[in-house]
Amino acid sequence: MPAQITPLISSLPASVPFVGPETQERTRGRTFRARIGANENSFGPSPKAIAAMSAKAADIWKYGDPENHDLRHALASYHGVGPENIMVGEGIDGLLGLAVRLMVLPGTKVVTSVGAYPTFNFHVDGFGGQLIKVPYANDREDWRALIETAGVHNAALMYLANPDNPMGTWWEADEIAQMIAAIPETMVLCLDEAYGEFAPEGTLPPIDVSIPRLLRFRTFSKAWGMAGVRIGYCIGEAGLIRQFDKIRNHFGVNALAQAGAIASLGDPDHLVRIRAAVEKARARIGEIVRPFGFVPLPSATNFVSVDCGRDGLFARKLLNALIARDVFVRMPGVAPLDRCIRIGCGTDEDLDYLASFLPEAIAAASEA
Amino acid sequence: MPAQITPLISSLPASVPFVGPETQERTRGRTFRARIGANENSFGPSPKAIAAMSAKAADIWKYGDPENHDLRHALASYHGVGPENIMVGEGIDGLLGLAVRLMVLPGTKVVTSVGAYPTFNFHVDGFGGQLIKVPYANDREDWRALIETAGVHNAALMYLANPDNPMGTWWEADEIAQMIAAIPETMVLCLDEAYGEFAPEGTLPPIDVSIPRLLRFRTFSKAWGMAGVRIGYCIGEAGLIRQFDKIRNHFGVNALAQAGAIASLGDPDHLVRIRAAVEKARARIGEIVRPFGFVPLPSATNFVSVDCGRDGLFARKLLNALIARDVFVRMPGVAPLDRCIRIGCGTDEDLDYLASFLPEAIAAASEA
Repeated sequence: MPAQITPLISSLPASVPFVGPETQERTRGRTFRARIGANENSFGPSPKAIAAMSAKAADIWKYGDPENHDLRHALASYHGVGPENIMVGEGIDGLLGLAVRLMVLPGTKVVTSVGAYPTFNFHVDGFGGQLIKVPYANDREDWRALIETAGVHNAALMYLANPDNPMGTWWEADEIAQMIAAIPETMVLCLDEAYGEFAPEGTLPPIDVSIPRLLRFRTFSKAWGMAGVRIGYCIGEAGLIRQFDKIRNHFGVNALAQAGAIASLGDPDHLVRIRAAVEKARARIGEIVRPFGFVPLPSATNFVSVDCGRDGLFARKLLNALIARDVFVRMPGVAPLDRCIRIGCGTDEDLDYLASFLPEAIAAASEA
Repeated sequence: MPAQITPLISSLPASVPFVGPETQERTRGRTFRARIGANENSFGPSPKAIAAMSAKAADIWKYGDPENHDLRHALASYHGVGPENIMVGEGIDGLLGLAVRLMVLPGTKVVTSVGAYPTFNFHVDGFGGQLIKVPYANDREDWRALIETAGVHNAALMYLANPDNPMGTWWEADEIAQMIAAIPETMVLCLDEAYGEFAPEGTLPPIDVSIPRLLRFRTFSKAWGMAGVRIGYCIGEAGLIRQFDKIRNHFGVNALAQAGAIASLGDPDHLVRIRAAVEKARARIGEIVRPFGFVPLPSATNFVSVDCGRDGLFARKLLNALIARDVFVRMPGVAPLDRCIRIGCGTDEDLDYLASFLPEAIAAASEA
């Protein structure tokens, strides 16, 4: 390694937060038949978004608007806030990286849950922050313990996803509101609502941009079906949102994504269709797994964490057996969450395929 | 500002590296007629790239490959290096930000030229680096003085663009090779070759990935005409390239850009066409400005810096007079470079428009 690399970065492992399905396909030498492992939206984007991006394609010799002006205004109107309360970025992942950079120096304390979003941890590690992790309680992020831990340690940053990934569980809005009211003075809360559009009414608290130490993250990657174009945003108090402009890659959000996102917001019926399809798929996943004694956890997302009723070793074997049968799925990384495998709300074809190969995958996992 | 923001970021100004033309259009309440100010490729991308991106649009519910595998392999083959020598990112801007983060801590010395690329400086400031700036000599970046300055100050990083932006000037490959051979042991050189495809044969030295402290930046935004989808790459020694994986936004490069870039590489004739169109436009810009006593600087890029023969104040007035007449152009920010305005190699229509309004813009700038 060149001597010029900073000591912090020299000390970082070469690990990556997620291995993509394409990497697995290259290793296997075979493509997946059911791609239901990355919480993608198998039902796709709004046709209006596709049309808007296609219309923009010949114009892509132009840089996109670095202010994301039109999209920020569309989002402001959509959420009933001001455009100064919206920051657009290259997906939630990119925005989380910036949020960490805004607040984390080497040694800064950051609180999250054991087994929560690895990419957030990747960013905290990348800026030398000290992660303090709180266990899930009953497969939910334990917000009370998280807030308490943050207070005890004078944490500068805390992460919680509602609904949660990888478990699919959620808190109702009034609990989240209690958590927000309890944010310590020392701290900013990153509230990841990537799956918010899939949740039941009453899961997301009303947006209040007067709250000073809260960033709420949303994305076009999940319900809006645009993961491949990389666009997300966060909502917050204007003074906090403004900080991102000091450090972000100003021309980083591509013009097609901006156009597609604006068009998506103009097609609210798409969300209605997607929610219905996801709800149907969630029920179907339950029907597929229950005959084997597995328990689908209640989910407010576009995936279902399925409790396989045994330990992490068994779940891992089952996961590998499914992958060997061309079903791309993932699972939580740590106990006790890792007794589950995480199954995405795929299309009918995806789930038919899963259903037809699950029995032999279970058999293979059981005998090995 | 919330107390949680780091002292470094609290101290940063709210300024941005570039104001986009869209922002100016919104302020003016009128669109530009000739968009020749951002060094974009007015002749557009390869039709094969457009077709590849359109074909991918319905599939954008999938995350793009976080390894950029196929594109890295295509680029490796294109440049005759290994895929481990290529890092793909959200444009050169994004990659420069990562390179700075790899090597710059508060107080780290970084060398660049007075008036060189503002976005590089933005990133250095953003990580608290100490910029040391060397004047241009005869409108070229003074590589000997830059290297000497870097050595004197034990700089960790140095930036040079060849061909240069904003002046359009260049060094021949053997001079660049001398500079590379003289990189101090303490330092990594960021060699920005964004405009490399426009330069005469013999401007870019052969690629040698055994050189340990060199990063060469390339982009699909300029000659390949894909600025709006945000994709660039850097080439370097594998051990250095590998460092980016520790900190980058792994899913940050969108799937459409990857597909478009791969398709572009499969259409080398496109570069031939673009180079011819740019060469013709460069000559035309000279014809347009010379009758007024202005001097077009020799250019190895898709823009021409035009010496207006007076001071920065006059050039600024002329720039504003052109903008008021719906011609989007930019100019260097500091003396003595700011006696020039920078005119992009637009289409025939763009340059016709420029030609028809330049006389009255000069008259307006002269009388004010």
